[in-house]
Amino acid sequence: MCPDRIAIEDAARRIAGDIRRTPLLHMPQWGVLKLEMLQLSGSFKPRGAFNRMRAAGFGRGGVGPIGVIAASGGNHGAAVAAAAQSLGVPAEIFVPEIAAEAKRERIRAYGARLVVGGASYDEARQASEARAAQTGALIVHAYDQAEVLAGQGTVAREWEEQAPELTHLLIAVGGGGLLGGIAAWHASSGVTLVAVEPEGCPGLHAALAAGRPVPAPVGGLAADSLGARQVGALMFPLAAGLHAQGRLVPAMVTDEAIRAAQQALWQEARLVAEPGGAAALAALLSGAWVPPVGARVGVLLCGANTAPGAVG
Amino acid sequence: MCPDRIAIEDAARRIAGDIRRTPLLHMPQWGVLKLEMLQLSGSFKPRGAFNRMRAAGFGRGGVGPIGVIAASGGNHGAAVAAAAQSLGVPAEIFVPEIAAEAKRERIRAYGARLVVGGASYDEARQASEARAAQTGALIVHAYDQAEVLAGQGTVAREWEEQAPELTHLLIAVGGGGLLGGIAAWHASSGVTLVAVEPEGCPGLHAALAAGRPVPAPVGGLAADSLGARQVGALMFPLAAGLHAQGRLVPAMVTDEAIRAAQQALWQEARLVAEPGGAAALAALLSGAWVPPVGARVGVLLCGANTAPGAVG
Repeated sequence: MCPDRIAIEDAARRIAGDIRRTPLLHMPQWGVLKLEMLQLSGSFKPRGAFNRMRAAGFGRGGVGPIGVIAASGGNHGAAVAAAAQSLGVPAEIFVPEIAAEAKRERIRAYGARLVVGGASYDEARQASEARAAQTGALIVHAYDQAEVLAGQGTVAREWEEQAPELTHLLIAVGGGGLLGGIAAWHASSGVTLVAVEPEGCPGLHAALAAGRPVPAPVGGLAADSLGARQVGALMFPLAAGLHAQGRLVPAMVTDEAIRAAQQALWQEARLVAEPGGAAALAALLSGAWVPPVGARVGVLLCGANTAPGAVG
Repeated sequence: MCPDRIAIEDAARRIAGDIRRTPLLHMPQWGVLKLEMLQLSGSFKPRGAFNRMRAAGFGRGGVGPIGVIAASGGNHGAAVAAAAQSLGVPAEIFVPEIAAEAKRERIRAYGARLVVGGASYDEARQASEARAAQTGALIVHAYDQAEVLAGQGTVAREWEEQAPELTHLLIAVGGGGLLGGIAAWHASSGVTLVAVEPEGCPGLHAALAAGRPVPAPVGGLAADSLGARQVGALMFPLAAGLHAQGRLVPAMVTDEAIRAAQQALWQEARLVAEPGGAAALAALLSGAWVPPVGARVGVLLCGANTAPGAVG
């Protein structure tokens, strides 16, 4: 099951000293931007990684040297590596062969051991699980673990504290860990979540149509951060329930809209976002989602692990 | 004379609807970053430009079509153009021949008329003043006007409200408009100002040594934003007075330190700053200025009008 508000409060206390409280930027023409791409390691992912690791006892005295293991070619791998370095435990990160060299470098820079674990993310994940079974290292899943979801949910708690007036939150969706954590925080609030997917990675749209998580295509500009093969089993029932109530609205954006949103962020606010990090704003700017009259809109900018020159 | 706290309070009320309240990012290893490069037009400059224009009556009914005029090849020109567009008045911006095409484009994009006014900033300034004498347009000086200083001072007022605990503020210095406004706000507070200049643009160092503003070299990496030929006459007495009390500490940074600070901002926080915008942080990271024990350090990141790829 998805965590509840109490689990997210626990997570927030557990990771308070580990993560950054990311600021807001009020843009009258757009809404309230949550600058989560300024988080440690360049995305929201350390919230979940630290919560998983702290909940397992890492960072307290007496926990031995057995480390953590994760599979990811991108933001999750960098976040687990950063969290492990910060907590003083060894990390092994399994990446697929297609992982970009810049992201590999970042993972190594945080002191993790990088292992090329197969052609695809799924192969890397299977290799990482086989390795964990041998070593006893703690697996930190990219999106489908309760502690990871609760950690990601802390971004919604923090945002609500900073801007309680917001009525609609735009959130990008890949595997659904971020959306699931935020949905858990807002399960019984009056807030509506706009769940934004790129056309190339329609995992949530496919799951809502099928009534369960199903495999979906992975492609397009934002595939390196939003390209999960299917959304998580833990988050799906909650997302489907909110969808049935009209409190979760799916939206879809083109690669052109994502690129335009990246450029608008740079032109208007001197902010850099990676494609997945700009997808939520793209839904607003392209008109893929139109705010109802009276809406107070928040937009989560969730990652910036890209070459900065790509946005100019 | 430099404005006082009352003039800065007036400015803050006058421009509240025009500018952005820029957020802070708390970085435990560095201090409290004030993200002023996320301001409208990519630098702090609209604070002074809007205050000068609003104080002259622009933006209220009944003020006719005679516009504003400014000389600048960079951030000030973009800010005046943005403010004029926002207030619905025509703007002419005089740039020197050396002004970068990217900055010219930005000025034109805000709807201003761009005039190439000579080989150097000084020639462009003289040409702009001759033109203003013909047209009656309002001159908005880049740093040496009371309303401009009061407008820049609003950044100190806002920052104090956001983080009253800070004891030392690092500020980059060009013509000294920003430092002057901040010094005016903190004239009688307990806060110490660290005034950071690049080696290539030592206008404040030269003025403090001479006892008055004197011409100084203009060169190096940050010359396009910090390269004033000499610091302003209005701000200098206040700066010199605080210097005599030990509450204004000059510091000097190399171009290498500036470049390293730009790269550190990108690596650690996914923030882009132009060279002048990273100079204050460079003093801290390079050890050009070392915080005393117990200091609570704030760093003003004051501009990001650069090609984003330059920082990666």
